[in-house]
Amino acid sequence: MTFKSKIKTIEWIDNCSKMIDQTILPNEFKTVDIKTSDEMYFAIKNMIVRGAPAIGIAGAHGMALAAIELEKNTSKKEEFIRKLEERADFIKSSRPTAVNLMWAVDKQMKLAKEIQGSIKEITQAIIENGIKLENEDIEINKRMGDFGAEVVPIGAGILTHCNAGALATVGYGTALGVIRSAFAKDPSIKVFADETRPRQQGARLTTWELTQDGIPTTLITDGMCSYFMSKGLIDMVVVGADRIAANGDTANKIGTYTVAIAAKYHNIPFYIAAPLSTIDISIKTGKEIPIEERSHDEVTHINDDWICAKNVNIINPGFDVTPNELITGIITEKGILKPNFTDSIKKVFEK
Amino acid sequence: MTFKSKIKTIEWIDNCSKMIDQTILPNEFKTVDIKTSDEMYFAIKNMIVRGAPAIGIAGAHGMALAAIELEKNTSKKEEFIRKLEERADFIKSSRPTAVNLMWAVDKQMKLAKEIQGSIKEITQAIIENGIKLENEDIEINKRMGDFGAEVVPIGAGILTHCNAGALATVGYGTALGVIRSAFAKDPSIKVFADETRPRQQGARLTTWELTQDGIPTTLITDGMCSYFMSKGLIDMVVVGADRIAANGDTANKIGTYTVAIAAKYHNIPFYIAAPLSTIDISIKTGKEIPIEERSHDEVTHINDDWICAKNVNIINPGFDVTPNELITGIITEKGILKPNFTDSIKKVFEK
Repeated sequence: MTFKSKIKTIEWIDNCSKMIDQTILPNEFKTVDIKTSDEMYFAIKNMIVRGAPAIGIAGAHGMALAAIELEKNTSKKEEFIRKLEERADFIKSSRPTAVNLMWAVDKQMKLAKEIQGSIKEITQAIIENGIKLENEDIEINKRMGDFGAEVVPIGAGILTHCNAGALATVGYGTALGVIRSAFAKDPSIKVFADETRPRQQGARLTTWELTQDGIPTTLITDGMCSYFMSKGLIDMVVVGADRIAANGDTANKIGTYTVAIAAKYHNIPFYIAAPLSTIDISIKTGKEIPIEERSHDEVTHINDDWICAKNVNIINPGFDVTPNELITGIITEKGILKPNFTDSIKKVFEK
Repeated sequence: MTFKSKIKTIEWIDNCSKMIDQTILPNEFKTVDIKTSDEMYFAIKNMIVRGAPAIGIAGAHGMALAAIELEKNTSKKEEFIRKLEERADFIKSSRPTAVNLMWAVDKQMKLAKEIQGSIKEITQAIIENGIKLENEDIEINKRMGDFGAEVVPIGAGILTHCNAGALATVGYGTALGVIRSAFAKDPSIKVFADETRPRQQGARLTTWELTQDGIPTTLITDGMCSYFMSKGLIDMVVVGADRIAANGDTANKIGTYTVAIAAKYHNIPFYIAAPLSTIDISIKTGKEIPIEERSHDEVTHINDDWICAKNVNIINPGFDVTPNELITGIITEKGILKPNFTDSIKKVFEK
């Protein structure tokens, strides 16, 4: 049972990529038109668009923009392909942890190489493939939502971390897609949203998009999760993922691992909701996942104000890795994968 | 081996209570003179002074201010005592979770009732007792620091939550007192300070006071603790306490419980540092400790700016309770109490 969400995060219209500017939410709502591959690099890097699946689509759109640019300046197909490959590497360097970005950009690049046709035809094919991936993302989210909704208890309190929502995807959400589908079946569920410092995507984005869609949401600070678990208010946790290793170890927004440990201590089911494109079977365990170190300002400042002593040290990992032993299930568009994840992941990719 | 700290948080001078205004740190350093018991109520309630032991001394000073006020307006000793009792209840209502506040105010009230003398003599005794408690607090902290330093490994990474420092006491600190004493012995230790949302005492106060004293400090957001534990950078946790039950269950700043669970998962020792006055043997377990629900603005706003959707729900517990099973030891001025805490606490109070 799918829910009708009001939010469309990223959309290809008239040869540009129209996206909600997520850096100014929740205080302001504005869309921006990304017209060049350079603009797309900065849009991804500066988190105008963020969330693994949305970044994937942004990457696919970025490749379409790059193809349009190169079509104007190159006449030889070889040169076009070579330069497109350079743009692909550039776009992929904007967020090194997000596997969906690599996945979508590589998919576009592979298509460009395979097409037997003119530069114009290749460009057209890349544009159309971007739109196709965009539509597939929503379909995949809805299928995940339906699978996930089956494991949500009646009247459940559901904790989520960061924003794995409509705003992290094209328009339905992975973790919040599960919540949307569950809410469509049972309007008595309640959501607890972790603030998710340092960038506060839970406060800024998750509370915005869920309340826009009329889903009751309580905002809590990151340290509070165990308190609410101990009070019996949280019946399950569902979060998104930035990259999943072949054994189920999951990289997601910093703080996810702490929530997973707290859930384990309280015997609360902890689910990852992520499309199969998030699973990187070339990576055996979470230890191999590169963790992006982000700007120190994200920790030392909030809204441009200093919040700490000036001469303090900062380490700001953007992600952490939740080991598979803390994960109850991985909700995908092909069903819920269960432990042993090495086996269940292998099986789903063999299908 | 004690460390010479630069910070004096609260001090009785010329019939008023001089304190560092902790609401404007770290961006501004200012002291304020609290001249009446009403002013003291608001100073405690609005967290100009905060931290369980410092609040205790503030309460003792508040009683001295009340006695000075009543001495001017009452001639009969009975009336003086009755009105002083009303002021005691009023002052105690400013922060209901902090047992040190009750402890210090009750101590002053008991003294007032016991003194065989004039109103003037009672007032003088209360003032002097306030100064005595103030000096004792520093002595107690230093003794705790020395006991605690013994369990700090060489070159340890030490995680702390909130501010149980010089700023939470008269001038040396409980958890940060342990760190100061350890640093005096071994300057290679490193501190990790949790930001401690919602009020960010870790960022605003702990990083300020430790860097003022030249102790290397890394600020992390609350969700990051498990990440740094998994990387082997944290060898022990030490935090303060607002109230400890007779079985060792410990109420402390919200988020402490989450850190304790993460420490347990990584087999990292988790210590409470608190004077015996924080232990409330009248309370059997943590379940009986009242948890203060604080203003929703603390969660929804940072520096007066909204950080979330306007129509989100908020629950803002100021404290959580860490169950005794997660606590390695309670560092007190009479040594480190070890499990079984029901026995070790009973024993230390019988001495």
